[in-house]
Amino acid sequence: MKIRDIGEQGLLQRLQRFCPAEIVGDDAAVLRLQPGCELVVTTDMLVDGVHFSDRTTSPQDVGWRAAAANLSDLAAMGASPLGITVGLGVTGDTDVSWVEQVYQGMSECLGQYNTPIVGGDVVRSPVVTLSITAFGEAIPSRIIRRNAAQPGYAIVVTGVHGSSRAGLELLLHPELEQNLQQSDKKALIKAHQRPKPRLDVLPILWEIIDNYQLPITNYQLPIAGMDSSDGLADAIVQICRASGVGAVVERNHIPIADSLLNFVSSEPALNWALYGGEDFELVLCLPSEVAGKIVEKLGNQSAIAGQIIAEKTVKLVDNNKETDKILNLNQGFQHF
Amino acid sequence: MKIRDIGEQGLLQRLQRFCPAEIVGDDAAVLRLQPGCELVVTTDMLVDGVHFSDRTTSPQDVGWRAAAANLSDLAAMGASPLGITVGLGVTGDTDVSWVEQVYQGMSECLGQYNTPIVGGDVVRSPVVTLSITAFGEAIPSRIIRRNAAQPGYAIVVTGVHGSSRAGLELLLHPELEQNLQQSDKKALIKAHQRPKPRLDVLPILWEIIDNYQLPITNYQLPIAGMDSSDGLADAIVQICRASGVGAVVERNHIPIADSLLNFVSSEPALNWALYGGEDFELVLCLPSEVAGKIVEKLGNQSAIAGQIIAEKTVKLVDNNKETDKILNLNQGFQHF
Repeated sequence: MKIRDIGEQGLLQRLQRFCPAEIVGDDAAVLRLQPGCELVVTTDMLVDGVHFSDRTTSPQDVGWRAAAANLSDLAAMGASPLGITVGLGVTGDTDVSWVEQVYQGMSECLGQYNTPIVGGDVVRSPVVTLSITAFGEAIPSRIIRRNAAQPGYAIVVTGVHGSSRAGLELLLHPELEQNLQQSDKKALIKAHQRPKPRLDVLPILWEIIDNYQLPITNYQLPIAGMDSSDGLADAIVQICRASGVGAVVERNHIPIADSLLNFVSSEPALNWALYGGEDFELVLCLPSEVAGKIVEKLGNQSAIAGQIIAEKTVKLVDNNKETDKILNLNQGFQHF
Repeated sequence: MKIRDIGEQGLLQRLQRFCPAEIVGDDAAVLRLQPGCELVVTTDMLVDGVHFSDRTTSPQDVGWRAAAANLSDLAAMGASPLGITVGLGVTGDTDVSWVEQVYQGMSECLGQYNTPIVGGDVVRSPVVTLSITAFGEAIPSRIIRRNAAQPGYAIVVTGVHGSSRAGLELLLHPELEQNLQQSDKKALIKAHQRPKPRLDVLPILWEIIDNYQLPITNYQLPIAGMDSSDGLADAIVQICRASGVGAVVERNHIPIADSLLNFVSSEPALNWALYGGEDFELVLCLPSEVAGKIVEKLGNQSAIAGQIIAEKTVKLVDNNKETDKILNLNQGFQHF
């Protein structure tokens, strides 16, 4: 069944099943924030053939990944999700079931974080396009910004990097899996298709901070952070730029999954970890006395991957602290 | 200069001039609501060749109209705007100046309502696409929903209808302007290119309601409303459907601009008023004792265009109260 067979009203009826009935159906959605919280808003656009393709991504995975990317941005700000809106551009020839599966995938991801789809827009477009805006709430003193990194801070990475890029490679070139165990292959592909926004890190972070009674300067939490959606190198460079500092990143402390090292050697694995992107982990810069506690509590291959320094360069160093290379933004994904 | 000449970073730098510096540059934007207010969210997607074209719409007008449509949805909910996010899909071949002019047009519209662009996403797409999400705040007891219309209520229309559709016709067929005065032509085209979201109606509405001490039942304001973005007929039918009621609409009470009647005869003018869409007025259903006061205060060709009835049909009647036709959604704009 094609969209032109059921028209806009028919499609909207089917999609409203994925939304809370009490919210949808007016000019706009209404959401309540907790008292004292501020609104946190982020938006992402995904275009068929640019950000996803049938070759590597099922419609459910398109939906899951789109929702996860936006929730990850909220996590990176220290915010709890309240809801998302979905702008969907589809051709008249798009299968209705394709659209429903995208919403199914979004709902599966959102459901893990009790986040509803609160509205949206469905329009005709020559190319399938998905535009998601996510809203969250955060306590003002706990908003995590990029510009708060200070020399001496430790750089905490909440999980492994490079797996998502490896999973994409396996989907694009299935012949590469020859020497790979089935479980490793599955783990890498799952990292690409079903990334998890690290909202689970936040309560752990707040608990440790509360216990340590960190000084809060001018209501600015002394933690800098962002997510690693555009690669670990990008995240560290962006934080350093916004904070006017630099960093020393220890290449052997960057967490990389065993499944990835079973697939490729350490050099390409490191390259994917730094520049592959879409791992959706958090990169947090904070006083070293709490960084260790956070890594201890998080487990699961979180790590202290480096330190913030005053000199405004981002260096990758080996075990002997020799500078291996200077990280910059140019090797990341360029959109044009 | 094309977008591929300056790349994503170059484009983002140029677009950030349109955004408040203190908000932009993190994973998400942070906004503060007034205490006791709820968050109101709406989203719209516009696609080149579907919702706008170079033939009828300059880039500034594309931006203005996109911003106005979203602010109109907030007005229709009784909400004051806080900010918008902009998702922009562009080809590498899109002129940088085209994009800047779109943002210029958005900023001009938003500036009239002190509303900032707080974030967004710029991506590559084979078709130019604009996805806007607007956030507002509203006092819970003053949120205007579609489902609160009750038999006996008057239907207030805040301004003239059909002009936007007439302006589009003049842009598509410039040869039609032969017998039209320059001032009429300009007025109709402006109605299409620079519609005004009726946020100005809200303070007037609240003042009159406060003075009349309307009963608030279960915190539900006894006012139903929406905007007429999809046509006046669509707005009335949608409100009636959501409220489980019907309406009698008096064809001779529907406000139509003189400039429109100088352009076409009353029958096509009425048709455009009912089904043309994009006039972005508000359609408010409320107790008749206050409806008159609102129209008096609003002036500018606002009018009471009909009454809500218990019978679930929407009838268009002439001066003799003879039913002229039954309004329904089918004649409106179908997106697929």
